[in-house]
Amino acid sequence: MSTRFVLGIDIGGTTYSVGSVATDGSRVAVLHEEPTRPERGADDVLARIIALGKRTMDETRTAIPDAEFIGVGAGAPGPLNRASGIVLLTPNLGWVDFPLRDRLAKGLGCTTEIDNDANCAVLGECWRGAAQGAVHALGVTIGTGIGGGIVLGRRLYHGASDCAGEIGHTTIEANGRRCNCGNYGCLEAYASGSAIARRAVEALDAGAESTLPSLVDGALDQITAQTVYEAASAGDELSREVVQDTAKFLGAGFANLVNIFNPDTIVVCGGVTRAGELLFAPLRREVAKRAFKPAVAAVRIVPGTLEAPGVYGAAKAFLDARG
Amino acid sequence: MSTRFVLGIDIGGTTYSVGSVATDGSRVAVLHEEPTRPERGADDVLARIIALGKRTMDETRTAIPDAEFIGVGAGAPGPLNRASGIVLLTPNLGWVDFPLRDRLAKGLGCTTEIDNDANCAVLGECWRGAAQGAVHALGVTIGTGIGGGIVLGRRLYHGASDCAGEIGHTTIEANGRRCNCGNYGCLEAYASGSAIARRAVEALDAGAESTLPSLVDGALDQITAQTVYEAASAGDELSREVVQDTAKFLGAGFANLVNIFNPDTIVVCGGVTRAGELLFAPLRREVAKRAFKPAVAAVRIVPGTLEAPGVYGAAKAFLDARG
Repeated sequence: MSTRFVLGIDIGGTTYSVGSVATDGSRVAVLHEEPTRPERGADDVLARIIALGKRTMDETRTAIPDAEFIGVGAGAPGPLNRASGIVLLTPNLGWVDFPLRDRLAKGLGCTTEIDNDANCAVLGECWRGAAQGAVHALGVTIGTGIGGGIVLGRRLYHGASDCAGEIGHTTIEANGRRCNCGNYGCLEAYASGSAIARRAVEALDAGAESTLPSLVDGALDQITAQTVYEAASAGDELSREVVQDTAKFLGAGFANLVNIFNPDTIVVCGGVTRAGELLFAPLRREVAKRAFKPAVAAVRIVPGTLEAPGVYGAAKAFLDARG
Repeated sequence: MSTRFVLGIDIGGTTYSVGSVATDGSRVAVLHEEPTRPERGADDVLARIIALGKRTMDETRTAIPDAEFIGVGAGAPGPLNRASGIVLLTPNLGWVDFPLRDRLAKGLGCTTEIDNDANCAVLGECWRGAAQGAVHALGVTIGTGIGGGIVLGRRLYHGASDCAGEIGHTTIEANGRRCNCGNYGCLEAYASGSAIARRAVEALDAGAESTLPSLVDGALDQITAQTVYEAASAGDELSREVVQDTAKFLGAGFANLVNIFNPDTIVVCGGVTRAGELLFAPLRREVAKRAFKPAVAAVRIVPGTLEAPGVYGAAKAFLDARG
């Protein structure tokens, strides 16, 4: 009997990852990551993803002679239509109405399914990561922006037109900061990686004392969320405040999710997990303060644990769709 | 062949309603409503509900000689446990750990199922009201407070411990008005019937001109949301402003729901629907301004149309649970 694999592809604005995922979720045999370089155009990006996919399949077959690929699952940012396999719009990649599913299927010679990248991340964590065993789980992916995915009854929930899960674009301050999406006061405008860096720089501009400038040789525009987490871990007071404020903003947003969904798990993915308990301890406190007690008692709020949740989840999305 | 009915019961803090609902949803043969008078105690309330239930069944059998009751569905406010049939806590009724399901089943001699009242309202509107045909629908019941119910894939979504759907207790202003639930800036604190009346009185206290005082003989504490809708319809400028502000608050909350759930329908139940297009027109505009276009395009926001959505929905909840 052969060992069955799905090729999982996670396409992001900065990097894409490709891995061979065993259909029982027991392992990723081969995993590769490359920079996306969207400025080279959609055809160029797609050609490189297909080349990396072929290489990953070849290397898997070399390592595991009886390996058989039954399909391809791909996660992509932005709204998409699963039925037609078309990515409608991805500002980070510059794709408009891009027939991702069929182009991948043709290039890789395998049946392909596509889904939203944040959906794939939470599905991956539910399958083999921090949210294993979850029945009703929400995933919040905090990077440059804030993405979301919803797993109800162990299956992805997509909504009426595949647009569900935009957790980052829920208002926590009706008259608050303008968000990139055009709305005001979105969670993303306060607690995304970019927002974390921006709040730190705003405090420095206002004259706050901090070790942050020394970490970027005085070039404040080089400060990232990662810089803030590092400085906070090293004891920098301003950075700790920025992280704690982040916990308060996220806490308001997560309390909404807890009161609406009564989930058993919220799993947080992305760079923000590097802030560790400095973030998660006050975040859990804020949720407990704001949300209904029976719902708080039912939920655990955990950082993701997978190296490539989107690759795992893209493979699982294929399996759930084509099973 | 007999004509099959479910007895639907909707228990509220002010009134309870009991009706005989045909299992195909085609009609409510007999419908009664009585004041709850919770101050008389849980046993008294329950005895009267059971008496009204028996009367409703008798009257139905008189009118329709082949009528057969296959069960009882009851909606109650507050968190409850469907598996044990126990209402955990209803501040408005003063019930704590009340075994509603088994008491009703014994008193009425029928298999009984219980569910949350706001869940029942949206399920009723999906079955036979304004949300007919909906696959993914959210119900928002605006009365003294703001309740919510979630129907996904045509079934009620209950969450990990039957607490899902507390849409009224989602934050739209992280540092905003204190809510009865202990949180800050909840939608309920801005847009419930009580909040609508309170905002009107606050404006009058601050010296605003209005016909409102004349409608209550100067007794401002007698102003209700209903008074505000009536004055707004009659052209009172302050009341129109209060209704328009309500639309803006609800719009922020509904935009969150649209971005999270990508529903096909949001149905609004309760007294607030009497404000009509004065409320719904600016509400739809606010949602369109705030939420993602593809999700806005997929959703219709409508007032409920059933006289007793909770009675219909309680019967349907029984059918879905025991069907």
